[in-house]
Amino acid sequence: MAKYKRGRQSFVLEQPPVITHWASVAGKKESEGPLAHTFDLTSQDTYFGQKTWEQGEKQMQKLALAKLAEKAGMKTRDFDIVFSGDLLNQCIGSSFTLRNMGVPHLGLYGACSTMAESLLLASMTVGGGFADKVVAMTSSHFASSERQYRFPLGYGGQRTPTAQWTVTGSGATLVCSEGKGPKVTACTVGTVTDLGIKDANNMGAAMAPAAFETIRAHFDDLHTAPEDFDLIVTGDLGQLGKEMLLELARREGVSLGGKLTDCGTLVFDNTVQDVHAGGSGCGCSAITLCGELLGKLSTGKLKKILFCGTGALLSPTSTQQGLPIPGVCHAVCITGGR
Amino acid sequence: MAKYKRGRQSFVLEQPPVITHWASVAGKKESEGPLAHTFDLTSQDTYFGQKTWEQGEKQMQKLALAKLAEKAGMKTRDFDIVFSGDLLNQCIGSSFTLRNMGVPHLGLYGACSTMAESLLLASMTVGGGFADKVVAMTSSHFASSERQYRFPLGYGGQRTPTAQWTVTGSGATLVCSEGKGPKVTACTVGTVTDLGIKDANNMGAAMAPAAFETIRAHFDDLHTAPEDFDLIVTGDLGQLGKEMLLELARREGVSLGGKLTDCGTLVFDNTVQDVHAGGSGCGCSAITLCGELLGKLSTGKLKKILFCGTGALLSPTSTQQGLPIPGVCHAVCITGGR
Repeated sequence: MAKYKRGRQSFVLEQPPVITHWASVAGKKESEGPLAHTFDLTSQDTYFGQKTWEQGEKQMQKLALAKLAEKAGMKTRDFDIVFSGDLLNQCIGSSFTLRNMGVPHLGLYGACSTMAESLLLASMTVGGGFADKVVAMTSSHFASSERQYRFPLGYGGQRTPTAQWTVTGSGATLVCSEGKGPKVTACTVGTVTDLGIKDANNMGAAMAPAAFETIRAHFDDLHTAPEDFDLIVTGDLGQLGKEMLLELARREGVSLGGKLTDCGTLVFDNTVQDVHAGGSGCGCSAITLCGELLGKLSTGKLKKILFCGTGALLSPTSTQQGLPIPGVCHAVCITGGR
Repeated sequence: MAKYKRGRQSFVLEQPPVITHWASVAGKKESEGPLAHTFDLTSQDTYFGQKTWEQGEKQMQKLALAKLAEKAGMKTRDFDIVFSGDLLNQCIGSSFTLRNMGVPHLGLYGACSTMAESLLLASMTVGGGFADKVVAMTSSHFASSERQYRFPLGYGGQRTPTAQWTVTGSGATLVCSEGKGPKVTACTVGTVTDLGIKDANNMGAAMAPAAFETIRAHFDDLHTAPEDFDLIVTGDLGQLGKEMLLELARREGVSLGGKLTDCGTLVFDNTVQDVHAGGSGCGCSAITLCGELLGKLSTGKLKKILFCGTGALLSPTSTQQGLPIPGVCHAVCITGGR
C-alpha cells in the first residue's frame, strides 16, 4: 500500500521536489577555508553580534533563513513549514530562531545528520502534497559545541589527533513542488548503528558503520550503484571516519567506486588550518551542501549525488555513563538541473 | 500544488491513516493514578531494571516498542520507520532504544509535544505512501528530567506551587494505511510562540499561548469548531496552563465550548497524589493517548478528538541566560472507529 516505498528503508519521489534556493552562513575559520567563495554570508565575530555563543548560533540560523527568503523573493512568513534542529541541548538554536516568527516548525534531532534528515522530511512533505514551500535547516557552532560536549574553551584543553573541528555555520534549503533547481529523487532512512566505539573524540569512527549501512541500503533498495553517481558525499566522518568507511565497504565487498568524499574533508584545508581529523557538526554538511554541492548541481557540473548526513547520537551523560556512541546516517539522492 | 494543504498551517489526510495498535508503559506513581487500568505495563522500579534513570527511560521505550509489536503480531524489525524523541539531552532515550535494532529511525525534538509531532509525521509518511507500518513514540522520566532541568533529586529541593510532575512513562502508536482503529484525518503544525514567560517552574503558562495559537489555526484552516469534537485535549498544560488557555481563548473571542481537557490534569489525582499543578513531560500525553484516549476512540465512546501536544522549548542554558520559554503545540485530529 505504500506506493513510494522501495526495499527496506527507502522511498522514491515520483514527482521530485525541487530545491529552488539555498543559503549559507559561515564563521571566521570556515571563511578562510577552501569553500569560502561558496558561502552567502560570513562573519569574523564568533558571537554574530549576540551576547552568548548559543545566541550566536541562533543568529546564524536567523541570517540563513532571512537570506533564503531574500533569494527566493519571499518573506520568511511565507514558508509553509521549517524542519530544523541542532546540537545544542534541547535544540535551542532552532527553536529560538523561529520564536514568534509565525512559521510552522517541526523540530528534529538527528545530531550531525540533521541537514539530510530535514531535507528528507521536507521532500516527503512536498512530494506528498502536504505543503509547498518547505525549509530544511540546521546549524552548529564550534564554541557552543565544545562547551557542551567537551570542555569550556577557556579551559584550554588539548585536542586529540582523532578530534574533529565543529563547523561554525548554518545552511538552509527551500524545497518546492515546482521551480528550477536540483531535485530530490529518492531517500533512505537510516538505522541506529553502533559497533561499540566509546571515544567521544573519535566521532568519525563512531559514525562510519551507520554511513556504510545506509549507503548499502540505498544501493540495495533502489537497485543502484556507485557508478550511477558523480559523488557519494558523507556529512562529517572526517579523514579517519572516511578511511574506516572505505575499509568497511572493502570488507563487505561493496565497491564505492572511488566516488566517496566527505564534507569534513572538504570544508577546511588541513595542511594549513590544523583541524586534526577534519570538520564536523550539523553545519559541516549544511554549508557544504548549501554552497559547493547545490551550486555545482545547479550548473550541471554535478549530475547526481548521494548526500549522506551522518550523526553521532551521544550525549555527555551517555559517555560519562560508559556507553558507546550510536551513529545514524540518512541519505538523499539529488540530481542536477537548472 | 500542495493538494492536501489547508489554510496556513494544516493539512488533511484524504485516505486517513489508521492507528491500528498502541502500547503504554508507566511508572509507580502513574500506576497509582486514575488511568492505572489503561496502561499495558507498569513497574514499581523507577530504574526499570537498569543502572541509571536515563537507561531506565530507554528501557521504557524498549518495553513500549516490544509491547506494540506483540499487540500487532509483528516483530520490531518489521516496523518501517520509528519517529521518536524525548526530553533528555541529545534525545538519548530514543536513540539508545533503537540502537542496533535494524529499524529505520527519524529523531525528533518537540519537547513535550513529541507524541503529537511524531503522530503527525507518521500520518504524513503513511498518508503520502512513503512507508506503511510507522511508529510514533516518546517517553519521559521524572527522575532523569528533574536532574537535567532542575535539581538532582538527592538535593531535596522544594517544588514551587506552579511546578508540574514529569510523568514517568512511554507511549507508542502504530500507524498503518489499512486496518481497524482510530483514524488520523487532519493535522496542524504549530508555530513557536512566546509571550515572555521566564519561570522554568511554570511550564503550563509558557505553553498555553502556543496551544491557543494552534487550536485557533486548526479551527480556521479546516473550518471546524469545538462543537465538532468530543474533546480538545492538550498535552501537559496542567491546571494553571489550562486555565490560562481558557482565559486567552475568552479574550480573543474563541469559544472552546466546554470541550477542553488536559492530559496533565487527567493522569494524576491531585487530591491525593500531591503533584501541584499536574502532570507534564512527553510521557504525560503519550500514556494518556496510548490508553485512555485511543481506547475510548476505538470503542466508540469518543468519536472525534483534537489531540494537541504541547512543548516548552527551553533548555537549562537558555533559562540561565535569562531568556524566556518558547512554546509549541501540534494538533492531530483523530476520529473513532473499530
